[in-house]
Parts: sequence; C-alpha cells; structure tokens
Amino acid sequence: MMDVRAIVFDVFGTVVDWRASLIEDLTGFGRARGLSADWPALVDAWRRAYRPSMDRVRNGERQWTVLDDLHRESLADLVGRFGLPGLSAADLEEITLLWHRLRPWPDSPAGLDRLRRRFIVGSLSNGNMALQVDLAKSAGLPWDVIFGSDLFHHYKPDPETYLGACGLLRLPPERVMLAAAHNDDLRAAQTHGLRTGFIARPAEYGPHRNRDSAPDGEWDVVADSITGLAEQLGA
Amino acid sequence: MMDVRAIVFDVFGTVVDWRASLIEDLTGFGRARGLSADWPALVDAWRRAYRPSMDRVRNGERQWTVLDDLHRESLADLVGRFGLPGLSAADLEEITLLWHRLRPWPDSPAGLDRLRRRFIVGSLSNGNMALQVDLAKSAGLPWDVIFGSDLFHHYKPDPETYLGACGLLRLPPERVMLAAAHNDDLRAAQTHGLRTGFIARPAEYGPHRNRDSAPDGEWDVVADSITGLAEQLGA
Repeated sequence: MMDVRAIVFDVFGTVVDWRASLIEDLTGFGRARGLSADWPALVDAWRRAYRPSMDRVRNGERQWTVLDDLHRESLADLVGRFGLPGLSAADLEEITLLWHRLRPWPDSPAGLDRLRRRFIVGSLSNGNMALQVDLAKSAGLPWDVIFGSDLFHHYKPDPETYLGACGLLRLPPERVMLAAAHNDDLRAAQTHGLRTGFIARPAEYGPHRNRDSAPDGEWDVVADSITGLAEQLGA
Repeated sequence: MMDVRAIVFDVFGTVVDWRASLIEDLTGFGRARGLSADWPALVDAWRRAYRPSMDRVRNGERQWTVLDDLHRESLADLVGRFGLPGLSAADLEEITLLWHRLRPWPDSPAGLDRLRRRFIVGSLSNGNMALQVDLAKSAGLPWDVIFGSDLFHHYKPDPETYLGACGLLRLPPERVMLAAAHNDDLRAAQTHGLRTGFIARPAEYGPHRNRDSAPDGEWDVVADSITGLAEQLGA
C-alpha cells in the first residue's frame, strides 16, 4: 500500500452529493418560476437515465457524446412526464448546468487536502472536463489533476478510462488507487490492476437503499469518509 | 476582454524559471557526485535541442513521444560532449526528472491564485501530464486544470493543442486567452482565434538575449508578471 502514489476519485456520489444538491436547486428553480413538480422524483428519474445513456455510447450504438449532452437529452425526455412541458431549451440548459455546481459531502474538501500532502489526488469521473472544472471551483475540490471521460472518449467502466489515467500519470496500475462509493466501479478498476478504496456514502440515494450502501468486494481500504481514507493511509 | 472565461498558460519560461533551476540542480548533482562540467552550457544546449526534438514529432518523422522521453534522449546525446560519458541510465533519468521540479518565477503562485478568483486558470504546456502534475505540486501552481501535450498527441504550435484545450473547456477560442512569454506561441494561438497575453520574462535565457525579450505582435495584454496580468484583467 505504501507504493500507491496517486489516488483518483469517482466524483458523483463519492465526492459530491448530487441528489440533495439537485433537489435543492430544482426546488429553487421551481419557486423562482412558479412551477411545481415532484422534484425529488424528477431527480431520481434523471439519475436512472444516466447509466443507460452512457451504455448507448459504450456499446457503440451512438458516437462519443459528452455527459453534459447526455444529461440534457435525458432531461428533455423526462420533463413532459413530470408536468413541465413548457420548459424552453434555455431552461433545459440551465438545469443541466446544475451538475456543474453540486455540493461536496462535508468531509470532501478537507479530506482531499489532507491526501494531497502525500499523494497525487485526481478525479476520474464520467463527467466531462468543463463540468468538472466548474464543479471543482464551486465545490472547492483541490484536485492536482482532473481526468474527464472526454479525454478518453470512453465512459467508466470501460478499461480505457482507468488505464488511460494511469498512462497519463506514467504510473503502473498498482501504484494508482481508485476511490469510489460504488462497488462496480471498484470492481472494474481492480480487474485492471488498480488499488481500491471504498468510501461508504449511504445517503447518496436519499431514502432509497441501493446495492452500494456497503462494500461488496475485496477492497484494499474501506472508509466512511475521505478524511477516514486519509487517516487510514497515514496522510 | 470581459468575455474571457479561461486563461491557459505556457509553463516553461512563462511560469517557471527552467534555466536557473536546472543550473542550480545540476550544480548540486555534480557536487554530490564529484563531477565537474560547464553546467550552464549543458543546460543551454539541452534547451536548444528542445524545439528540434519536438519538430521531429510534429513533422511526422517520428511517432508521438512524450516530452520526458525527448528530454532524456536529448540529454543522452549531449553528455559525451560535456565530458560526462560515465553517467548511467539511472543518472540520465534523475537529471531528466529535474524538469518535474523547476522553481516558479516569484510572482507566479500569487498571480495565478489571484486570476483564479475570476477566471478558469489552466496550463497549456508541451510538458506531459505527469511532468506537469509533479511540477504543479512542487512549485505550488494552483491550476484549475492541466492540459498536457499528451492529451492531444501534438506539440504547440500545432493547432490541435490550442483548439483542443478550448474544446475540452467547451468554450469558443475568443473566450480563452493564452498567456505566454513567447511571441511564436501567442502568434499561433491568435491565428486560431484565442486572446493573447504576453508576459515579459527577460531573464528566461539568463545572460543570453533572445527574440522574446519584448512583445512582438498585437497582443491583447502585455504584462511584466502574472500579478501584472491579474491587475490588468481586474482580478
């Protein structure tokens, strides 16, 4: 473990609380516009469209498309069903850009700062670079380096993402750890030789339980926060 | 000018003082090993090999090769001439990695920090990502984002670098400024629609004058430091 030189983080769910942030921001948007809708249900439906939308890119059904564009398209497909057929293209863009300013879990900025003293600390997210740059600035995430899916034209869990980050860092996979709140993400990284750190985020899906509420694999480290991960890694 | 949202910086010479850093570090290396050589002359010769080595990649004479590897090869070609034929492969690697910990010009960290309050601030360097990540950590460069030549498999002044960074930022070129101490770099960026900021670094080549000691083009901003650039841009 002492040989780990870089830790790359999944972002949505692991570093930032996408669900509470989007619900809060959409509630505010609705209030400002005099619109009412079941915002939590819209956010959950939007998130459920996330993986299938990326899978259509991953399986070659469609050409490379950045996450901002997938988000906008998924949202456009949903608004009618949620009683919001009158939203304009500018409204859809405004809502899509809410992903650029999600709030961090309370421990994230301080935990990343601590890890940076000892490791290279980066993101490895399905978010595109522009989204992640905005998010890092607004959430105060002190990345040493940002790796977005648009660098690789691949979404996780495609191997090109994990191995692409290792290649750009010029490090062998065993010297890179993926930290994530999602077992599937860690499983893919482990398959390709990376070290793994599970960060439990049981509140990610709000009141909805999900399969990631507990670690479900042989992960190198299991922690309940990023500061906890730093603690265990001696940073 | 108010419309500029991101400023990307050339690094070697503009943000860090490669010449004084390398001379200091090589002098220390020589002292520790009991080796004497004309270190300033070696550094200047090494730097003179920089552009031709990249040009062989740019003109297709050789496949994509990252700057760390070009640096190591150029150094290997020079050491015999400088009376250092006995250096091992490990020594050449150690010296090559000195580029990963060059020192910043005194105004660089504070100037970048100031610009970050108002703009996205990134690097756009011919250095590869791993080199730049190490350099940012050791020199305290607070980048929002790092763009290395290995993201594009092209070296500046190829258009793929300037336009590649704009594309990843999802900004039109006119909303991105290149800040550099080199007129050629700015000229290429301007050709592709970017805004330009000249930072005068008259000491870059030490006692050797060079064509970049003064601005030589219609640059949007001319400053004598990064803090000066921040001042002029109201950051």
